[in-house]
Amino acid sequence: MRASRMELGLSEISVFLRLSAILFLVLTACLVGLDAQSKRIFYTERRATFKDLDALIVLVYVVSAAACYNLLHLCKRSISTWFEGYSKWDLCLSWVCLLVDQVAAYITFGANSAALQSSLFAVTGEEDFQWMKLCNRYTRFCIQIGAGLLSGFVASLLMAILSSFSAFYLFRHYSAKRFLFLK
Amino acid sequence: MRASRMELGLSEISVFLRLSAILFLVLTACLVGLDAQSKRIFYTERRATFKDLDALIVLVYVVSAAACYNLLHLCKRSISTWFEGYSKWDLCLSWVCLLVDQVAAYITFGANSAALQSSLFAVTGEEDFQWMKLCNRYTRFCIQIGAGLLSGFVASLLMAILSSFSAFYLFRHYSAKRFLFLK
Repeated sequence: MRASRMELGLSEISVFLRLSAILFLVLTACLVGLDAQSKRIFYTERRATFKDLDALIVLVYVVSAAACYNLLHLCKRSISTWFEGYSKWDLCLSWVCLLVDQVAAYITFGANSAALQSSLFAVTGEEDFQWMKLCNRYTRFCIQIGAGLLSGFVASLLMAILSSFSAFYLFRHYSAKRFLFLK
Repeated sequence: MRASRMELGLSEISVFLRLSAILFLVLTACLVGLDAQSKRIFYTERRATFKDLDALIVLVYVVSAAACYNLLHLCKRSISTWFEGYSKWDLCLSWVCLLVDQVAAYITFGANSAALQSSLFAVTGEEDFQWMKLCNRYTRFCIQIGAGLLSGFVASLLMAILSSFSAFYLFRHYSAKRFLFLK
């Protein structure tokens, strides 16, 4: 199967998107994981880190795992370009990649949403429950977490687009007339 | 284009999945939205409702909107089966449906994750921040919210599967050799 020039362009775009996703995932892990601020409150030194909120710990683990997966995917891609054709083995691998792409995109988005919700409590508090806000004390810490979350959402968006690319690459090999028959 | 028997089977499965998704979405909205519990604490009557937590309000709106969208999709589907063939208009509509399916699945999953995070704070509290737990007082209320969230996650999973179905139905109409060319 010879790829057209436009096809190659799309392939390059997908590599560029995956590299960007890795960059944003690593940026999120660094911004959230390395964030810390010390403050003296009532004569005691208190230090805020991402470990204070479970949702932020989960986020750091999830984005790190997602970055590793995307890196592995790029390696697999560069190996598979050495071979020609589209064998049954390629087909199985494409199904696995599509599945993992989808799961990774959803879990990254979910972890980001949960971390955003946790952080919103820290920003606004919840008067009804007597949960006091904390970001008026640790302002720099909270701004850095906010930047991390923004970067995490960009990474989720890129991963969602990439999982659609994977679906397109796989499903167009199937017949439009007979169910689950290859062309 | 004549559909095979297996194709019709797949079409019925997809209608069944969409009906199930609507059922679980409505169940989530009812379980969360109609949940309330009154308790006398220190001589004052206090009433817990889903309106106490912003994430639960957002969840109720999101699942209601998602249920309406899925219902509209079913109506559109039953109208389009009156016509034969696969015109350019069908193609545009399939792209729009795929996009909205994906966005709806991600937003429902994100809203569920955020609501789960909020609810976890109510269950466990956060000692470091002096956020006290609330579910030891409003136990029945919290169990009902938990059931609502479980139902919401089942609905998200069904919507994710449905968006993959939409992608399969659309992308298999494209050529495997020439980029974005219909067969």
